[in-house]
Amino acid sequence: MYSLNVRDHFMIAHSFKGAIFGPAQKLHGATYVVDVTFRRRELDPDGLVIDIGAASAAVKRILDDLNYRNLDEEPAFDGRNTTTEFLAKTIFDRVAAAIAAGELGENADGVAALKVSLNESHVASAAYEAGIR
Amino acid sequence: MYSLNVRDHFMIAHSFKGAIFGPAQKLHGATYVVDVTFRRRELDPDGLVIDIGAASAAVKRILDDLNYRNLDEEPAFDGRNTTTEFLAKTIFDRVAAAIAAGELGENADGVAALKVSLNESHVASAAYEAGIR
Amino acid sequence: MYSLNVRDHFMIAHSFKGAIFGPAQKLHGATYVVDVTFRRRELDPDGLVIDIGAASAAVKRILDDLNYRNLDEEPAFDGRNTTTEFLAKTIFDRVAAAIAAGELGENADGVAALKVSLNESHVASAAYEAGIR
Amino acid sequence: MYSLNVRDHFMIAHSFKGAIFGPAQKLHGATYVVDVTFRRRELDPDGLVIDIGAASAAVKRILDDLNYRNLDEEPAFDGRNTTTEFLAKTIFDRVAAAIAAGELGENADGVAALKVSLNESHVASAAYEAGIR
Amino acid sequence: MYSLNVRDHFMIAHSFKGAIFGPAQKLHGATYVVDVTFRRRELDPDGLVIDIGAASAAVKRILDDLNYRNLDEEPAFDGRNTTTEFLAKTIFDRVAAAIAAGELGENADGVAALKVSLNESHVASAAYEAGIR
Amino acid sequence: MYSLNVRDHFMIAHSFKGAIFGPAQKLHGATYVVDVTFRRRELDPDGLVIDIGAASAAVKRILDDLNYRNLDEEPAFDGRNTTTEFLAKTIFDRVAAAIAAGELGENADGVAALKVSLNESHVASAAYEAGIR
Repeated sequence: MYSLNVRDHFMIAHSFKGAIFGPAQKLHGATYVVDVTFRRRELDPDGLVIDIGAASAAVKRILDDLNYRNLDEEPAFDGRNTTTEFLAKTIFDRVAAAIAAGELGENADGVAALKVSLNESHVASAAYEAGIR
Repeated sequence: MYSLNVRDHFMIAHSFKGAIFGPAQKLHGATYVVDVTFRRRELDPDGLVIDIGAASAAVKRILDDLNYRNLDEEPAFDGRNTTTEFLAKTIFDRVAAAIAAGELGENADGVAALKVSLNESHVASAAYEAGIR
Repeated sequence: MYSLNVRDHFMIAHSFKGAIFGPAQKLHGATYVVDVTFRRRELDPDGLVIDIGAASAAVKRILDDLNYRNLDEEPAFDGRNTTTEFLAKTIFDRVAAAIAAGELGENADGVAALKVSLNESHVASAAYEAGIR
Repeated sequence: MYSLNVRDHFMIAHSFKGAIFGPAQKLHGATYVVDVTFRRRELDPDGLVIDIGAASAAVKRILDDLNYRNLDEEPAFDGRNTTTEFLAKTIFDRVAAAIAAGELGENADGVAALKVSLNESHVASAAYEAGIR
Repeated sequence: MYSLNVRDHFMIAHSFKGAIFGPAQKLHGATYVVDVTFRRRELDPDGLVIDIGAASAAVKRILDDLNYRNLDEEPAFDGRNTTTEFLAKTIFDRVAAAIAAGELGENADGVAALKVSLNESHVASAAYEAGIR
Repeated sequence: MYSLNVRDHFMIAHSFKGAIFGPAQKLHGATYVVDVTFRRRELDPDGLVIDIGAASAAVKRILDDLNYRNLDEEPAFDGRNTTTEFLAKTIFDRVAAAIAAGELGENADGVAALKVSLNESHVASAAYEAGIR
């Protein structure tokens, strides 16, 4: 299995509901350094997993929709705790949708699986990974 | 598959038996920077892989039992080479046992797999991973 | 010159005032991974720059006063843009005050200078450094 | 599953053919920081995934055959775009061949799978992984 | 003293002249991960060392003039060994010139010193630093 | 001021004397990832701070004299606490002596200052720096 990883980041405010979150129930924030990994069985005709320029641009576009936001006020997350795990899945879904919509190029339909990791500090991270076809 | 990773470290002395270990047959030591990754198929009702506070505390407790020790004198490792690989498995077993004992909270019984990585320098690491249910 | 560095982190929400801040004028947030460096000309009688346990605990205490906060609502920062640079200086002042108050041990009065670095992502950081005696 | 990872690097010049590569069609170069991960189900009689000294030496030997080269002039890569993905597979094949040839020691025949990751910058990497028996 | 650091990278081919360079006399290449640090005594009226957006854009522009090049064919470097140290100074000079030309904003004239670090691998880097007013 | 940095590591056992060291009074150990930084005002005739091959070899030789040792039994450290700070100074002195002895090449006499940093974990490091002529 081949894979290609690109890294970018976004910075948000949010708060959590539920006693288990302790002090994180207060409005606070995070920088998430995001790794998006694209996997496929065979390389495309150009010898690539995916066009890294198109992949980086698509990831940037998806993160820009979250960047500099208070997630507590985003309709898309209404009634949800925007935990690191949940956000990893959210970004996974958006990258998968971008591939399906052809936004990462025609050859991107050979991408078989994705992993999205969010590093929230030097000691904690969360991820979501799954096949997409 | 979702995952959550927490990082901590411990510092030990030990020596190895067997010509293959070369100069590491002498008493020396290591800092192990430890990544414990918890995996599960679906998030728990709080939107979490695991309560990160409880997970971090449990990992710290487990590493504290090894920290600042000469592993050559630990009865638990009698007659064993405490290689990085072996220690990764040891910590894996102890984290799995802590989950089974309910020490990481009730929802932790949804954790399906663990990975424990020990980084012993900027150029070497070892890990053990397996399903736990 | 000797130095000792300890690392910890905190997570906050804030917003900035002024057109130069662009999208960061909206409420957002950040994880700051903080490096506090203590410098001195000669080691103390224990062969240390500073007691690393006391230093780590003091830094943690200082960061805990900021952690999980919306800095826009902190009276201490009223009317100020809590830029990374400004926060580095804030933490510098608090660590210096803790040393002066004897909270890092008697030998800490030999610490001659401090540097506080805040890493806000994998591509940006800011710092403040100065002598303290 | 156990794993052991060793890290090294090499520095090369190359160019790519195809409009998709944009400015990378010009002769340029890269440092690749390489992680080679060896995986096996059970540890060998010494409690190891593999002799880390032999593994590091073999990886260094394999990377030395690429280091300080212009890959455009290497007969082995004639007519191929030496993308990061392609080079990961190339190194994978060479490490697998070294294991098969007994160059990593007799116990290395228990290695079940390999992963080779090439980090080309702080924001991009590619990898190839597969079973080898 | 305050400082702000931004990180970016560029990828080039080059070769060196002189027996001391050993195998690096052959055409090869490197990824340089570049840290540019701006220093000043007091923050500007916005509470900044420098506008990080303007600084990142200027650094990117300067690195883009080197990126994807064979430095052996660049007239600017004719007859020079483009060592990591030399390139650090080259980029330093270009950032200093951009500040002097007002390309980093009016407040940037308060920047007192710069440091440019080039990380060429996980085990080697070089830098140049000096005052600029 | 120009600088060049090389990184390597060593792994030792030791214990400390004095109540301030708490659990570190027991025999334990550490991996130290070492950064040695060479500084000089002007580059040598080859455009270098120092021959990186000679520098890396000298640092490796110096670290090999400490690697895989129990520092409590080293005559050179008799009666001393081998704290990270102390070891940074020890290595500094040995690198400075190697330069003075001509072991890093003739041009190395232009090196004006050194910094030696020992990273003992992902959250702690110590260093010693000074001029050497």
